[in-house]
Amino acid sequence: MIEVALIGAGRIGKIHAGNLAQHPGARLKCVVDVNAAAAGELASRHGARAATPAEVFADDAIRAIVIASSTDTHADLITQAARAGKAIFCEKPVDLDLARARQCERTVEGAGVTCLIGFQRRYDPTFAALKQRLTEGEIGEPEVLIITSRDPGPPPIDYIKRSGGIFKDMLIHDFDVCRWILDDEVVSVHASGSCLVDPAIAAAADLDTTAVTLRTRKGRLCQINTSRRAAYGYDQRFEVLGSRGMLQAGNHRPSEVVAYSSAAVCTDLPEHFFLERYQRAYAMEMQHFLDALIRGTPVRTTIADGVKALQLADAATRSCETGQAVAL
Amino acid sequence: MIEVALIGAGRIGKIHAGNLAQHPGARLKCVVDVNAAAAGELASRHGARAATPAEVFADDAIRAIVIASSTDTHADLITQAARAGKAIFCEKPVDLDLARARQCERTVEGAGVTCLIGFQRRYDPTFAALKQRLTEGEIGEPEVLIITSRDPGPPPIDYIKRSGGIFKDMLIHDFDVCRWILDDEVVSVHASGSCLVDPAIAAAADLDTTAVTLRTRKGRLCQINTSRRAAYGYDQRFEVLGSRGMLQAGNHRPSEVVAYSSAAVCTDLPEHFFLERYQRAYAMEMQHFLDALIRGTPVRTTIADGVKALQLADAATRSCETGQAVAL
Amino acid sequence: MIEVALIGAGRIGKIHAGNLAQHPGARLKCVVDVNAAAAGELASRHGARAATPAEVFADDAIRAIVIASSTDTHADLITQAARAGKAIFCEKPVDLDLARARQCERTVEGAGVTCLIGFQRRYDPTFAALKQRLTEGEIGEPEVLIITSRDPGPPPIDYIKRSGGIFKDMLIHDFDVCRWILDDEVVSVHASGSCLVDPAIAAAADLDTTAVTLRTRKGRLCQINTSRRAAYGYDQRFEVLGSRGMLQAGNHRPSEVVAYSSAAVCTDLPEHFFLERYQRAYAMEMQHFLDALIRGTPVRTTIADGVKALQLADAATRSCETGQAVAL
Amino acid sequence: MIEVALIGAGRIGKIHAGNLAQHPGARLKCVVDVNAAAAGELASRHGARAATPAEVFADDAIRAIVIASSTDTHADLITQAARAGKAIFCEKPVDLDLARARQCERTVEGAGVTCLIGFQRRYDPTFAALKQRLTEGEIGEPEVLIITSRDPGPPPIDYIKRSGGIFKDMLIHDFDVCRWILDDEVVSVHASGSCLVDPAIAAAADLDTTAVTLRTRKGRLCQINTSRRAAYGYDQRFEVLGSRGMLQAGNHRPSEVVAYSSAAVCTDLPEHFFLERYQRAYAMEMQHFLDALIRGTPVRTTIADGVKALQLADAATRSCETGQAVAL
Repeated sequence: MIEVALIGAGRIGKIHAGNLAQHPGARLKCVVDVNAAAAGELASRHGARAATPAEVFADDAIRAIVIASSTDTHADLITQAARAGKAIFCEKPVDLDLARARQCERTVEGAGVTCLIGFQRRYDPTFAALKQRLTEGEIGEPEVLIITSRDPGPPPIDYIKRSGGIFKDMLIHDFDVCRWILDDEVVSVHASGSCLVDPAIAAAADLDTTAVTLRTRKGRLCQINTSRRAAYGYDQRFEVLGSRGMLQAGNHRPSEVVAYSSAAVCTDLPEHFFLERYQRAYAMEMQHFLDALIRGTPVRTTIADGVKALQLADAATRSCETGQAVAL
Repeated sequence: MIEVALIGAGRIGKIHAGNLAQHPGARLKCVVDVNAAAAGELASRHGARAATPAEVFADDAIRAIVIASSTDTHADLITQAARAGKAIFCEKPVDLDLARARQCERTVEGAGVTCLIGFQRRYDPTFAALKQRLTEGEIGEPEVLIITSRDPGPPPIDYIKRSGGIFKDMLIHDFDVCRWILDDEVVSVHASGSCLVDPAIAAAADLDTTAVTLRTRKGRLCQINTSRRAAYGYDQRFEVLGSRGMLQAGNHRPSEVVAYSSAAVCTDLPEHFFLERYQRAYAMEMQHFLDALIRGTPVRTTIADGVKALQLADAATRSCETGQAVAL
Repeated sequence: MIEVALIGAGRIGKIHAGNLAQHPGARLKCVVDVNAAAAGELASRHGARAATPAEVFADDAIRAIVIASSTDTHADLITQAARAGKAIFCEKPVDLDLARARQCERTVEGAGVTCLIGFQRRYDPTFAALKQRLTEGEIGEPEVLIITSRDPGPPPIDYIKRSGGIFKDMLIHDFDVCRWILDDEVVSVHASGSCLVDPAIAAAADLDTTAVTLRTRKGRLCQINTSRRAAYGYDQRFEVLGSRGMLQAGNHRPSEVVAYSSAAVCTDLPEHFFLERYQRAYAMEMQHFLDALIRGTPVRTTIADGVKALQLADAATRSCETGQAVAL
Repeated sequence: MIEVALIGAGRIGKIHAGNLAQHPGARLKCVVDVNAAAAGELASRHGARAATPAEVFADDAIRAIVIASSTDTHADLITQAARAGKAIFCEKPVDLDLARARQCERTVEGAGVTCLIGFQRRYDPTFAALKQRLTEGEIGEPEVLIITSRDPGPPPIDYIKRSGGIFKDMLIHDFDVCRWILDDEVVSVHASGSCLVDPAIAAAADLDTTAVTLRTRKGRLCQINTSRRAAYGYDQRFEVLGSRGMLQAGNHRPSEVVAYSSAAVCTDLPEHFFLERYQRAYAMEMQHFLDALIRGTPVRTTIADGVKALQLADAATRSCETGQAVAL
C-alpha cells in the first residue's frame, strides 16, 4: 500500500484525492493546506489527517507527494520532496521561471525520484487513443498538427496577473501536446497575439487570443490557436495530417441527443470546462502515477517535459514582444 | 446511513455493489449468493459480510434489499422482502409469468414498501436528457417513437432457453421505454419475428430478429426493431417525432477520434455492450434509489412498470404466434 | 436523336423537360397539356411545340412519351402509348386501381415496349450508392430495413381527397424501396395508422401517420414509419441491418455550415422537400431512361414494380381497416 | 442577350462554357485557343465559333471576355479587353508579378470596365452561407479564422515550376478567403513551410506544406495550413471564432451513406478535388458575373481583390525566405 500526502486542498486537490481513493494500492495519509480547515475537511473525507509540509517530508512511510498548491510553491515543494526521496506528482507548471524550473529538474534527476508533471491531456481517452493510433502508423508520418484550445471564458483579472501570461498559463498544455503528438523537438517558435476579449487583460499586460506556429527538427509544422473565450464552451480539439491520412480529436458532449426543430439540427455543446472534459483524464493520470510507482515503470509526463513546455512558452512570449520568430 | 443487503454476487451484482459504495448515505452490509465464495469475495471488497437470505430479512438494521440474482428467484425474494418491510431494488423482469408478477405487485403495494425495478435505460444520461426536453415541450406532442435495440451478438443457447423468449428477455426494456417516452398506455400490439442469426435459436423455439408496432390510447405509434446481432456493437437508439420537431437519442462512443484514410472518414464503433453503455445509467439508478429512500420520494421505475412491460411482452409473444395484432 | 413528347406541363413536367434538354441524344418535340398556355410556354422554352395526345401518338418520329399528367390519366395514356409502340416514362402510380394497373402491365408486356415508372428514389445518389454497396456484399445478407419517410407538411385537403389515400399516394415509394433494397418479395403486410396532424384528413377518411411492417419470403423484416408532417423538413432516411454490418442513408443538407452558439451546435435542416432532395434523382432517372432506349437495355423501375408497389398499398389499406395482417 | 467570348478551351474553360450556356441572358459567341482543334470542338458544342483574340477584341457585339488561358497570358488579355471596353471574367491570379498585376488593375480602373477575378470559393454554397450568417451578426465580431486547404495530391513538377510557388498558386485563394471573411486588411504576414511530400518539389525550389499567420488592422488573427497532399481527398474547411460563437464550413461528400462494420462507423471521403467540390461555385460565379452585367451591379471579387491576394502571397514568400514576419 503506497501512502501519499496531498499538498493543496483546493479544487484540483479534491479531484486528486478522490482519484487516489479509487486505487486499491494507495492510501491518502495526509493533507496539507495553508487553510487548515480545508485540509482538515478533505482529510477527514478520506480517512486521512491534516499535516504540515515538514511532517510530511519527515514521514518515511509516505512514499509519494501530490503537489496541487499554488504555482509559486511548486519549485520549492518539488525540491524538498526530491531531497526527501519521495515520488512526486506536481501540477503544471514546474515554475514560471525557466531557470528555476531547470534547477528543479536537476534536483529531481540527482535524487533519482519519479516525478510526474500534470499534463493531464495526455491521459484523456480521446487524445490517448489518437496518439496510440498515430504511433501504430495508421496515418503514416505526421506532418502537420493543428491545435485548437479555447476556454469558455476568461479567469478573474487577479488570476491573470499572477498567471505568468497566457503562454505559460494556458498554452503550456498545447506546447506539451505538440511535442507529444509530433514526437519531435521544436526548433523555432512564432507567436502572435491580441487582446480582443477584455481590455482589462490588455491592461494587465497579457493577451487573450493567440496564434502560434512551431517548426520541428524534422520540418513538421504545428499551429496553435487559443482564446480565453468561446461562447459555446471549452474547445479542445486537434488534428494531425499524416502522409497517409488524418486523425482528429474532437470535443466530448454531455449527451448524444440530437434535436430537430424548424430552425436547425442541433447537438449538445462541448463539455463546459476542464473539470468536466478532463474528469477521466485526471483519473487515468493518477492511476498511471500510482501504477508506475507500484511497477517501477517510468511516467509518461516527466519534469523534463515540464521544462521543455516552459521553454516554448518563454520563446512564444519573446516572439510576441518582438514580432519575430525565435529559434531554439 | 442506510444499510443494504445485496442478493446476487454475479456480474450485475458487482456493479450495484460498486455504485452503492459511492453513495455517502448508504453502506453495503451483507452479500448473499448461492456461491458462498463469490458472496464472500464481493463482501470483503466492500467491508460487508456474506449472509443467508433468512439472516438478511431478519436483520432489522437492513433497510433495503438489492436483488440481482437469477430471474426465477425474483418473485420470491420481492415477496419476502416486502413482507419484511424492506425497500427493494430488483433487476428486471419481475417474473417470466405475468400472473405471478401481478401477485408480487399486489404484495408490494400491500406492504407499502418502495420497489424499484431495474429499467436502467431511464437513467442513462442521453435518454434522460431527451425525456426531460420532451417533457418541457421542446417538440410539442409526441406522435411517433422509433426504437432500435440490437445486441452485439446472441447469448449462449442455454441462456436463450431459460430467458422466457426474446420479448420478455430483450424487448421488455423497449416496452418500458415506449411507455415512458410516450407517456401513454398501449392499446394494441403487433409483433413479427424471424430467426436469421442462428438456427439454434429457432431450434430453441425463440426468435432473434423482431419488428413490433405498438399503438397507444392517444393514437401514438411506436415501432421497435431488435436483433440479437449487430456486427458493429450494441445499438441503442430511439427517436421521437413530435408535432414541432424531433429528438433523437444516439449511441455513445469510447472516444471522439475521427480518422480519415484514403478509403473513408471513420469514427469509433458504439460502446460495445450494456456494461459499457449503461455504466453511468447503473450508477444514476442506484443513486436515485438511495436518494428516494433518504428523501422519502417515489422511484421512477416501479413494480407496476415492471408488470406492464411484461404484459406487453406477453402480448407480443401471442401476436407473433398468431400473426395478428393483440388488443389490450 | 430520340424525339420525345411530354404529356403534362406542370411542376414535375417542367423538371422532366429540363432534364431531357441536358441529354445530348434526345430532343423534346411536343408538349401536351389540357392547359394550352402552359403547354405552349414550356414547349417554346425548349424549342418544342404544343400538341394534342392524338398528334403525339400518331407521330412516328416520336419514340418516347413522358407522362407527367394527373394520376387518373396514367392508365389510359400508358395503354395508348404502348399500342402506338412508344417507349414510356410514367410518373407513379400506374393507377389507383390495382386491376386496372395490372391490365396496363399486360398491355405494355404485350406491346413489348420499354416502360419506366417514376420511382425516382432508386436514382438518388445516396440511395443508389447504398444499394450498390449492399449488392457488393459489404454488410452480408440484409435482414432488417427501417424506412423513415416524412413530408414537411400535409398537402391541401383537395389533393388528399383525390390521392387514393396515404398508402397509395405516399407509401407507394416506400413499398418500392422495400422490394428494391431487400431484393425479395413481401409475404405479409401489417399497417397501423392515426390522424394526429390534421382532423380534416380524418374527415377525408385518410390517415396522416402510419406504421407498417412487411415480412418477406426469406423472413426479412421491414418497418416503415411515415408522417405527413415533420417540422424540420423532408425526412427521407433508411437503414439496412445486415449479417455483417449496417448501411444508413441520411438526409441531404443545403450547406455544410456548423454553427456553435451558447445554446447548441447546429447544422442545416434537411433539404426542404422532394423537389430539392430528389433534384439529382430526377436528372439521373431521365438519363437512365434515355440511355436505356439508346442502348436497348432494360430500365430499373418497370411497370411490374409499379403494380407490385400498388398491391402492397392495397394490402396496407386493408390491414389498417381490419387491424390485422394481410397475407400476399 | 450578352454575347461572350471565351479564351482558353481547357478543363476550366469547358466548365465556364457549360455554365454560360445555362444563363438565359447570355450566349457564347467565340472560343479562342492556341489549340485550334480544342477551340473548334468546344465552340461547336455550344453553337459558337472559333476565333482569334484580335477578332474577339474587334467585335463590338461581344460584350464580355472570359479568360481561362494560362496564367502568363492573363495580364496581357486583361489589358487588351479593358482597352476594348469589354467586361472581364479572369481566372486567378491576375499575374505572378505584383507590379504587373497592379498595372492591370490601373488599366481596368481607367477603362471603367467590370472585371471579376475567379476566386470561386466566395460563390460556394457553404462558404457563402457562412459569410452571410457572419455578416448578419450571428456570432458577433469575428476574432479568429482558421483555414485548412489541402489538395489530394501534388500537381506534376512541370506545373510546380511554372506556378510561381505554393503561395501564389495555392494559398492565393486562402489569402482571398481571409480578407473576405474577416472583412479587414492584413497588416502582417508570417509564413513557414516545409517540403515533406515530395523532394522533387524542394528541388524545384518550392514548398508543399505551409503554416501562415496573418494579423489584421483590428488585431484579428488568421491561421492558414496547407498541404499539397491529403490522402483522403480535397480538404477545404474553415472556421471563424466570434465573440458570441463559432461558424464552421465543412467539406462536401458525394453521398450521405453511413457504413457500420465490425471495425468502424464510416462516411464518404470529401469530394475528390476542386472540379467536384466547386462545381456549384463555378456555376454561381458565372451567374453572378452575367447578372452583374445585366443589372449593372458590381462584382463580388474584383481585380483589386486579385492584387491584394497577390500582395499577401508575395509577403508570405518573403517571410518564408527570411523566417521573419513581414509588415504590410
